Amino acid sequence: MPRIVMKFGGTSVADLDCIRNVAQRVKREADAGNQVAVVVSAMSGTTNQLVAWCQSLDALHDPMEYDTVVATGEQVTAGLLAIALQKIGVPARSWQGWQLPIRTNDAHGKARILEVDGAPLIASLERGQVAVVAGFQGLGPGDRIATLGRGGSDTSAVALAAALKADRCDIYTDVDGIYTTDPRIVPKAKKLAKISYEEMLELASVGAKVLQSRSVELAMNERVRIQVLSSFQDIPGTLVVDEDEIVEKEVVSGIAYARDEAKITLRNVPDRPGVAATIFGKLAEDNVNVDMIVQNVSADGTTDMTFTIGKADLPRAQAALAAIKDQVGNSEVLIDPNVAKISVVGVGMRSHTGVANTMFRALADKAINIQVISTSEIKVSVLISAEYAELAVRALHTAYGLDAD
Amino acid sequence: MPRIVMKFGGTSVADLDCIRNVAQRVKREADAGNQVAVVVSAMSGTTNQLVAWCQSLDALHDPMEYDTVVATGEQVTAGLLAIALQKIGVPARSWQGWQLPIRTNDAHGKARILEVDGAPLIASLERGQVAVVAGFQGLGPGDRIATLGRGGSDTSAVALAAALKADRCDIYTDVDGIYTTDPRIVPKAKKLAKISYEEMLELASVGAKVLQSRSVELAMNERVRIQVLSSFQDIPGTLVVDEDEIVEKEVVSGIAYARDEAKITLRNVPDRPGVAATIFGKLAEDNVNVDMIVQNVSADGTTDMTFTIGKADLPRAQAALAAIKDQVGNSEVLIDPNVAKISVVGVGMRSHTGVANTMFRALADKAINIQVISTSEIKVSVLISAEYAELAVRALHTAYGLDAD
Repeated sequence: MPRIVMKFGGTSVADLDCIRNVAQRVKREADAGNQVAVVVSAMSGTTNQLVAWCQSLDALHDPMEYDTVVATGEQVTAGLLAIALQKIGVPARSWQGWQLPIRTNDAHGKARILEVDGAPLIASLERGQVAVVAGFQGLGPGDRIATLGRGGSDTSAVALAAALKADRCDIYTDVDGIYTTDPRIVPKAKKLAKISYEEMLELASVGAKVLQSRSVELAMNERVRIQVLSSFQDIPGTLVVDEDEIVEKEVVSGIAYARDEAKITLRNVPDRPGVAATIFGKLAEDNVNVDMIVQNVSADGTTDMTFTIGKADLPRAQAALAAIKDQVGNSEVLIDPNVAKISVVGVGMRSHTGVANTMFRALADKAINIQVISTSEIKVSVLISAEYAELAVRALHTAYGLDAD
Repeated sequence: MPRIVMKFGGTSVADLDCIRNVAQRVKREADAGNQVAVVVSAMSGTTNQLVAWCQSLDALHDPMEYDTVVATGEQVTAGLLAIALQKIGVPARSWQGWQLPIRTNDAHGKARILEVDGAPLIASLERGQVAVVAGFQGLGPGDRIATLGRGGSDTSAVALAAALKADRCDIYTDVDGIYTTDPRIVPKAKKLAKISYEEMLELASVGAKVLQSRSVELAMNERVRIQVLSSFQDIPGTLVVDEDEIVEKEVVSGIAYARDEAKITLRNVPDRPGVAATIFGKLAEDNVNVDMIVQNVSADGTTDMTFTIGKADLPRAQAALAAIKDQVGNSEVLIDPNVAKISVVGVGMRSHTGVANTMFRALADKAINIQVISTSEIKVSVLISAEYAELAVRALHTAYGLDAD
């Protein structure tokens, strides 16, 4: 009997009517003879509210208590969907992260899944019960609730699909697939029929919010076939698959942008061995993810160290930097939250030259200043002033010939 | 070191300011050298919202899923209060029912606590950590979340106080103590300094919403000294204690009313042995609590059977009665949700006569018709039309000489 995982994001379960709609979609798959595990997010808006409460009480809140609070959103949806399924005659029960359990590490607020015990779920599926699993959460050390970070329900779904050896992992969302860029900014953006894990990973890590990057990484490692599709329309979505399955490889598949980063510059850092290790070691220890890093050439024995982090980590990062200021010996700390990161991604870059140059020329033509550059094998990212974000994305979409006819 | 349990109800943790206020009160007790366990309810309004969602999806929802959904309210408050305590320098952590665990039976939606493992909590208290425990919930069979019914957090607090051998169990609420009746209806109602477990139990079971009746029963059995006091004002509350501690016993201590019951009449029930057992056995099996029961004298081999249940159980009760209609052989089922139960309570009744008669005469003087009567050793209850509820309470308060000067 085929076994599938269906994942529904926050907008797909936004209210009771949406939840009833999801129940009908799940019933259709169950009636078609599939064993079905469903992973649900919190009803849209819920998580934001819960996060705001924690922030308001203490910007440097205990991440274990934060997780206790925010994990409730998914718990509510899981129970409600189980009720909605039972109402239309589909046997179902909800599972919380701690009930399976889904074991995670101790990085509360952005925990990684270590192990999923698929056995109780498989037993439940074989009894003909639909399993409704609360996404985004697991059980950390000391039996504390741990959450997986924004978009973590995608990762829950992929981890579950791997543990259940599921035939498909369908990610239902409020868009109908992966586009060459955000269609709200570029109306000429095109939907992709297929995209490789590697490209999706780069797009997800640089701001395309459709899938959490960790979920793509996990899917790539476990060879889980993901389909991204709309929970509101019955049309094919985008398959995220192995590169070998894609015949016509584009030089650039997509353009992503992110506004949720902040730029931090430490002025006059003494230019001596070990100073970078001190700074980034402390930030890692305090659970702050650092993205782009630039260090200028040294002048008079000191240098400026610039890097970007997630805006949400800003209070934590500032506290960490204050704690090591004497040890590092830097002068001021400059914070710029008004930045945007623009990235072009494509596996074709490996065999084509001049991709970065096309980007720099297109931005220069629009008089957009580049603050930081970072590249990978299949990606070029630049940091620019946030006010130019849309303009930059549109210019690049045209420059790489991605505009629909 | 003295050990205390403090319990805060929904209105005491209604928003973040209230939660900060609660944190200050807890800090004061901790600073005074007490080991403190705090039990919290959901932020006011939250539980109603969650219940409404479950009801809306399916009036006959699965009580296990209902519990999964509604237990989240307390989980949120527990995490938020732990953050608020840490913010003001009080070491604290939250505990969910399943983390301790608080073991319950399988009567989901109104489960009874079977056992509380106090050991992990005591270890945490001795490390100087305030324990913030989510009220209203425990862990049922099969490791499913079970909730204790409306007001269940009071019972959580008393059970915890018993398990921790606490010196006091302070129930903070939006009223400043137990009154002779609801002061919103009778402005001349008086606050009681002390009330016996037995009286409080009767008052709680007949509509005084200050304490859940099961919590009083548990306190009586475990000899837990309860204090009911205001979370907003610094004034003494009401002690709920053993009858022996009360020197001046009133004939009638309090008058309670309840509007959350519905009256059901089964017409033309065949008058044969076992028919009551069939009806009430089925209702008990389906987790419907029956309160007052009246059976009229038989005429022509059939009788009318009248009883009251909680309004929330109405859909479940109707389904149960429909299922056994052929077996019972009754004709119509009449439902009247517009009833109120008025009760007078006092341990002095044991040694005084004429208490019930005073009640009947006072109601007759106001031309209020009595539909059902039920009595216990220290209580007389009557069911009347809901529209007369306030009038009846005021008349009785005066008739028993309870009005303040």
